[in-house]
Order: sequence, then structure tokens, then C-alpha cells
Amino acid sequence: MSEGPLDHLIRLLAGLPGLGNRSARRIALHLLERRETLMLPLARGLEHAATEIKDCDVCGNLDSVSPCRVCCDPARDAAKICVVAHVSDVWAVERTGAYRGRYHVLGGLLSALDGVGPADLRIEALFSRLKAPSAYAAANDSKISEDVQHIEEVILALSATVDGQSTAHYIADHLQDFPIKVTRLAHGVPVGGELDYLDDGTIVTALNSRSAA
Amino acid sequence: MSEGPLDHLIRLLAGLPGLGNRSARRIALHLLERRETLMLPLARGLEHAATEIKDCDVCGNLDSVSPCRVCCDPARDAAKICVVAHVSDVWAVERTGAYRGRYHVLGGLLSALDGVGPADLRIEALFSRLKAPSAYAAANDSKISEDVQHIEEVILALSATVDGQSTAHYIADHLQDFPIKVTRLAHGVPVGGELDYLDDGTIVTALNSRSAA
Repeated sequence: MSEGPLDHLIRLLAGLPGLGNRSARRIALHLLERRETLMLPLARGLEHAATEIKDCDVCGNLDSVSPCRVCCDPARDAAKICVVAHVSDVWAVERTGAYRGRYHVLGGLLSALDGVGPADLRIEALFSRLKAPSAYAAANDSKISEDVQHIEEVILALSATVDGQSTAHYIADHLQDFPIKVTRLAHGVPVGGELDYLDDGTIVTALNSRSAA
Repeated sequence: MSEGPLDHLIRLLAGLPGLGNRSARRIALHLLERRETLMLPLARGLEHAATEIKDCDVCGNLDSVSPCRVCCDPARDAAKICVVAHVSDVWAVERTGAYRGRYHVLGGLLSALDGVGPADLRIEALFSRLKAPSAYAAANDSKISEDVQHIEEVILALSATVDGQSTAHYIADHLQDFPIKVTRLAHGVPVGGELDYLDDGTIVTALNSRSAA
């Protein structure tokens, strides 16, 4: 028997991250009970997002306009660039509301195990963006070239994993000769974290980076 | 700022059962990385299923044809009807492969707390289906009337909860005068279940329904 529309839908849903067969069946039934209010809007929302959302040519963020609204926002500090691995990291930093500079999304991390090299990421784009901000902006879109000045600081907001740290190291290494301050996120005890439950590496790092109380 | 297509999509996804904001964001990014291979097929799959899938007029199951393929299958025993609360229960019983009769989906369970009465469920339809199978089939679709005979057994496959059992009781009560055998699923120790972890109610039921070893 060929696959019916329901089995087809369940198979597609079950392939989404975090979902399995059981949750896909549950979602399919939930949707079929709400065809007009949820199922068709979701179908249209998916299609709309698939055609409307694009990568920002400047920073690699996802938005319905390119350059994205972060890159175009004149209220943000164009002299600071926060380098992150994924678009979800942009969202995570944005949710804090604590950062008012711009971003550069690498699209992943260097990984010898997975065979991800510098050419697979937006690392070269970062270097040319830092080397000649106005030329980079002009090549990508003139709208933001006017407020691009000399970039003063690059914040490497990469995961505290082996891949994240080797990527940070690779970038910092290549930026040594640039007149740019390169910083990375502080490592230490997470807010709300109990010492007893922390791994040794975090405690050692927190000890070494201790500050005056 | 008005809601962009990405925020809109994430909001819709976050409303699905079992998903929250974080998993919805993760799914949205996963989809945007696979627009042609997954996102657009999913949009079309949703739309296709929303228009193609219908309730079976006979049993209430969901299928792309009505009567559904279970009702139309001449190899299945039309003299047995398995009464279940939800379409997902049909799928659960079908996965076992142990049942070759037909189904009747109530669409829920009687619930005094939630204000669900007999008129909110497909209970009357069950009674007319049992009272006059050929007339019921003819009224809904002639295709299956030819193989509908006298219905011999109704299996109440309802949850072992208060609502499930009161629904089973209500149906069994109304079928007393019908020349039909009414059965319910056995209660007892689940296969693979350890006695020590079972609740008292299950152990008492399993003791009372013990069989010769």
C-alpha cells in the first residue's frame, strides 16, 4: 500500500529535531482537529518563512530583510562585533538585552572530527569585514556603509567546548596583527550554580579568573 | 514592531503539543537549513493532509477515504466492533496486529468534570450502528452494506481511568437488551511490569482476575 497523506505527514514530523514517532502522531492528530485555526496557518507560515527569510549578507543572521535588522539598526554600536557559531546564539544573546553591538554568525565551529575547516565557515568573511569594513559593507549593501567605522572590538562568544575553543583560538590567532581588541566570554560559575555540582574544569577556571570581591 | 515571518512560525510551532519556545526555535532553524528538502515538503504535506484526510462516516477513524480502509477491508471481521476513545487508540490497537475486526471511535470520553456528555461523543451513532447495521451502513455508504451482518461482539477498549470506566459502564448499560456480547479489555499486570512498582489497584485487579496457570 502506498503511503497515505497522514503517514507522509507523520513521517515528516517525526524527522524534526526532538520529535519521534509518538510525538509526531500526537501533533498530527492535534493539527487535524484544528485544521482551519492551526494546520493551514502553519502550512502557510512554513511556506511564507521558507521564501521570505534569508541569510543576512553582512553578518549571516536570519531575517526577512538583508542586511538584517540588527545590522541596519543605527542605534547599535557598529564598532563591536560579537562572533557566534549559530543563529540561535544570536537569539540567545539578544534575549539578554545586554549587548548593543553587531554580530557575525560563523555557521558552525571548526571540527577536526567532523571535517569542518575554515573554508566551511564564514571565517574569511569575518576577516575581510574586519580588514575593510566600508569595502565589505559596500560590496554587500550600501545601506549600512555610511555608519560603518573602524571596528574596535571582536567578542568571541563561542561555546566552552573543544570545538568552540579551537575556533576561538584560530580566529584570535589570525587577528593578532589587526588593531582590534579581541575578547572572549568569561568562564566561571554559572549564576545560580552550586559549587558542589560543578565539574572540576569550571571550578579551576573560576578560581584562576577570580576577581576582587 | 510587527511580528516577522520567523517569529510567527516559531509562535505557531511552540503551540503544538509537547513543544515549547526553545524546541520551536530549534525546529524552525532546522527547517530553514533544509528549505527545499524538508520545509516546503512539510508545508505541502500539512496542506495536503488538511484537505485530504476526513473522518470515516462509519467508524470515526481518520483516513483519506470515507469509509476508511479498515471499514472497507472485506478481510476484516465485520461482526466485531472495538470501541475506542480516540483515533490514536485505533492506531495503537492496529500496531499490535492482534485485532482483525472493526472500530468505533467515540471522539473522547464521558467526563462530568469537563462537561462532556453522551451527546458530545459518537455514542448514539454506535447504538444505531449496533441496532441496525445494514441501515446504518446504507445511510453512510452503500459500499460496505453488503458485508455487514449481525454484530456479535462489542469490545470496550477504553482507558482504565475514571472517565474511561464510566464511559464503558454507560455503553454496557445501554447495550444490556441488545443480543450482543459486550466485553472489555483485561486489567492486570502489564507485560514486563514488576509487582513492586505497581499500584495497589492494579495488583488487586490482577489478583481478582487470576487465571489457572
